[in-house]
Amino acid sequence: MRLARKDIIGLKEMDKDEISLILDTSESLKEISERDIKKVPTLRGKTVINLFYEPSTRTRTSFELAGKRLNADVVNITTSNSSVVKGETLRDTVQNIEAMNPNIIVIRHSAPGVPNFIANILKSSVINAGDGAHEHPTQALLDLYTIREKKGRLEGLKVAIIGDIAHSRVARSNIYGMHKMGMDVTVAGAATMMPLHIERMGVKVTTDIDKAIEGVDVIMMLRIQMERQMGNLFPSLREYSRLFGLNLDRLKRAKEDVIIMHPGPVNRGVEISPEVADGPHSLILDQVTNGVAVRMALLYLLAGGFEVSSKE
Amino acid sequence: MRLARKDIIGLKEMDKDEISLILDTSESLKEISERDIKKVPTLRGKTVINLFYEPSTRTRTSFELAGKRLNADVVNITTSNSSVVKGETLRDTVQNIEAMNPNIIVIRHSAPGVPNFIANILKSSVINAGDGAHEHPTQALLDLYTIREKKGRLEGLKVAIIGDIAHSRVARSNIYGMHKMGMDVTVAGAATMMPLHIERMGVKVTTDIDKAIEGVDVIMMLRIQMERQMGNLFPSLREYSRLFGLNLDRLKRAKEDVIIMHPGPVNRGVEISPEVADGPHSLILDQVTNGVAVRMALLYLLAGGFEVSSKE
Amino acid sequence: MRLARKDIIGLKEMDKDEISLILDTSESLKEISERDIKKVPTLRGKTVINLFYEPSTRTRTSFELAGKRLNADVVNITTSNSSVVKGETLRDTVQNIEAMNPNIIVIRHSAPGVPNFIANILKSSVINAGDGAHEHPTQALLDLYTIREKKGRLEGLKVAIIGDIAHSRVARSNIYGMHKMGMDVTVAGAATMMPLHIERMGVKVTTDIDKAIEGVDVIMMLRIQMERQMGNLFPSLREYSRLFGLNLDRLKRAKEDVIIMHPGPVNRGVEISPEVADGPHSLILDQVTNGVAVRMALLYLLAGGFEVSSKE
Repeated sequence: MRLARKDIIGLKEMDKDEISLILDTSESLKEISERDIKKVPTLRGKTVINLFYEPSTRTRTSFELAGKRLNADVVNITTSNSSVVKGETLRDTVQNIEAMNPNIIVIRHSAPGVPNFIANILKSSVINAGDGAHEHPTQALLDLYTIREKKGRLEGLKVAIIGDIAHSRVARSNIYGMHKMGMDVTVAGAATMMPLHIERMGVKVTTDIDKAIEGVDVIMMLRIQMERQMGNLFPSLREYSRLFGLNLDRLKRAKEDVIIMHPGPVNRGVEISPEVADGPHSLILDQVTNGVAVRMALLYLLAGGFEVSSKE
Repeated sequence: MRLARKDIIGLKEMDKDEISLILDTSESLKEISERDIKKVPTLRGKTVINLFYEPSTRTRTSFELAGKRLNADVVNITTSNSSVVKGETLRDTVQNIEAMNPNIIVIRHSAPGVPNFIANILKSSVINAGDGAHEHPTQALLDLYTIREKKGRLEGLKVAIIGDIAHSRVARSNIYGMHKMGMDVTVAGAATMMPLHIERMGVKVTTDIDKAIEGVDVIMMLRIQMERQMGNLFPSLREYSRLFGLNLDRLKRAKEDVIIMHPGPVNRGVEISPEVADGPHSLILDQVTNGVAVRMALLYLLAGGFEVSSKE
Repeated sequence: MRLARKDIIGLKEMDKDEISLILDTSESLKEISERDIKKVPTLRGKTVINLFYEPSTRTRTSFELAGKRLNADVVNITTSNSSVVKGETLRDTVQNIEAMNPNIIVIRHSAPGVPNFIANILKSSVINAGDGAHEHPTQALLDLYTIREKKGRLEGLKVAIIGDIAHSRVARSNIYGMHKMGMDVTVAGAATMMPLHIERMGVKVTTDIDKAIEGVDVIMMLRIQMERQMGNLFPSLREYSRLFGLNLDRLKRAKEDVIIMHPGPVNRGVEISPEVADGPHSLILDQVTNGVAVRMALLYLLAGGFEVSSKE
């Protein structure tokens, strides 16, 4: 089976079979990073451009390693000191990059819609590595992979996503993806952190985190963007932590086999206590490991690779 | 045939045969970037250092891809956060780099003469990727390649170069190169944008762009460096655009098969209108594509490769 | 013989056999960088992360070339624009990096003890590329290599280290390493530049540079950190140069076959005069060349390579 699309823009437009194909492919590729020689010749001679308009050590490194372990040539472009400064339009920038014959352009941008915009212009494949508060599909895919790996399935699982839903591209992509995979999603956070008409996304909504985590299989904590949210959305970190932070005490209300996730970077003691972040339920580092596998799968599939799923 | 020089500093000191050799080699190598596997082992185990004292996404990426597609090891050094800060002399910096056994050092610097200075110090090959307002030989070579590819020849063609000639290393390198190849060059721009004694370079000079573009085969628009030129050289962008910008109306005076070039990044609506930049005469993106091929050719030839020209 | 340790944190904890193993291995690997094809497949499929919290063109480039010439995948992370900004703890940052399955993490940090701290957390190998005023073991190893290469031995040699001993990680690592190798070390500098109880390190101490260089085999000049030391530790550059700078006149007091070293970047005319830095006794550029070889040896040995020493 092949992936029948040129770009990865968001999970909103993907269907269950596509997501399953990506997760199955990730499963096949994950063990490459555990080998003594972490390298296969699959993408030899392919060019991957990491075009980052926002800094991100974690995501950029994950894509860079994914590309290199598949033998692709990876070029990083971070745009703080680039021709963006010189007043060139985004369209011109990406058309110039495309003129150098890349295969895949990975883009992160603070403006929602940018990856879709450039995907429509370019013949190259485009992967959205996060666009404003819109989507972060590779994060959601690695989250789904991590849940499936731990729980053995996705269908029928109950998830609570807790934090600033309104400003979270991670939450949006996960809500889309989880619904496609037949999961049940509750979102919890202060009323100021809920997008308008959030219930139209098919989620349950609550401002009571204690209620939200009762009976769920997965708790996904979101990161507080301290620099922009403090003072506007909640009065203090202490207040936030008290009302919406996940700590050992609160965790007692959850199922015994609940798994806890966080997209990182973690604000320890704010949205999650150190004991929980490092505790036995936490899959935070598994998410990072699986991120490389999922991104290898996406690069592989977009470059024309195919997967005979072992699951079907 | 081999390239009988260690460095690429400027087109002023090159002769016609050398330029032809580089263009012919570029032609052989261009198709590598169009292959499914864009990679050949030619420069395996060679080290290319990109030493950029000025930011440049476009040129740095072009050299990085050129090196990687030939299998060289490419290391980027951008000097905003480097030991330059620590007060080391340029001579010491480049001698330290040479002590690590590179094969080729690609350098961009704001001071004219720097590439020549370091080429005289080092045994490594040096490629000038732009030095102040002096020369930008790889840009001129890719321009010549693009013209030859489109027109089938260079000799006898008429070119108009339009804009701030005095501050343009692109203009200088092209004037040298075009003359060597037997082309006829007219430069056009405000009197404040003309270098003293420009006519000694063997070009025709005019301040009337409409007159300049009549009958030429190639129109090369230069980029306005908005940050440093506004207010000094012309009163406003609107004024500049009216007097020296290339738009559809003005283009009517040109030959039907005229080709239009620009080294990028483009200031749309200033030196060139969007309709012209994206129109059928424009080769702006071909220039970018050919830039990778020309840089592959230079890396290849400087590393000792030879070319049996198919043209001779 | 194999290196029986996971990490390279400092020379304080290494013994003579380990140091000899590293130097012997460096000797075997040095010629790779002198070949026409500077590349061996030894570390194919291994991942090296350069994690630099302080800028350093020289050391980062040296490690990057060392990794690439051994065929490792090298990823650079410089943290000015990284998730460090986002308030993540160092522990979380490095655990996240480790979750991506690197083999070796090279770290530079302004805080002494950071490499040791992360080495204790991680299963990956950690190489200290300089931590505050604590240690810079790869610099000392390349210094030892360079001395041994020139003098044919280390045991019994007399060394003078001159400059700001108190703030120099280079001095500290060299003092440890030289003592293990049976060398005799004198340190010289202003009283304000001597750490408390420096004599407990087993060195001779003097404030008289002329006396210090008499009869030694090696003179190692330290770099003046002009940005932070001026005004605090000595009144002026001229004063420093007069009292502690190495110039031709002063050099007359030294042995005829003395060798002169400097870790770079050099402040010409301050701690060392141009005539001495570029003179026949100077090994400054050899140090840089040997730095690549020593770092190749460390990457190779930490990745599990072994060396049948040709010396034993």
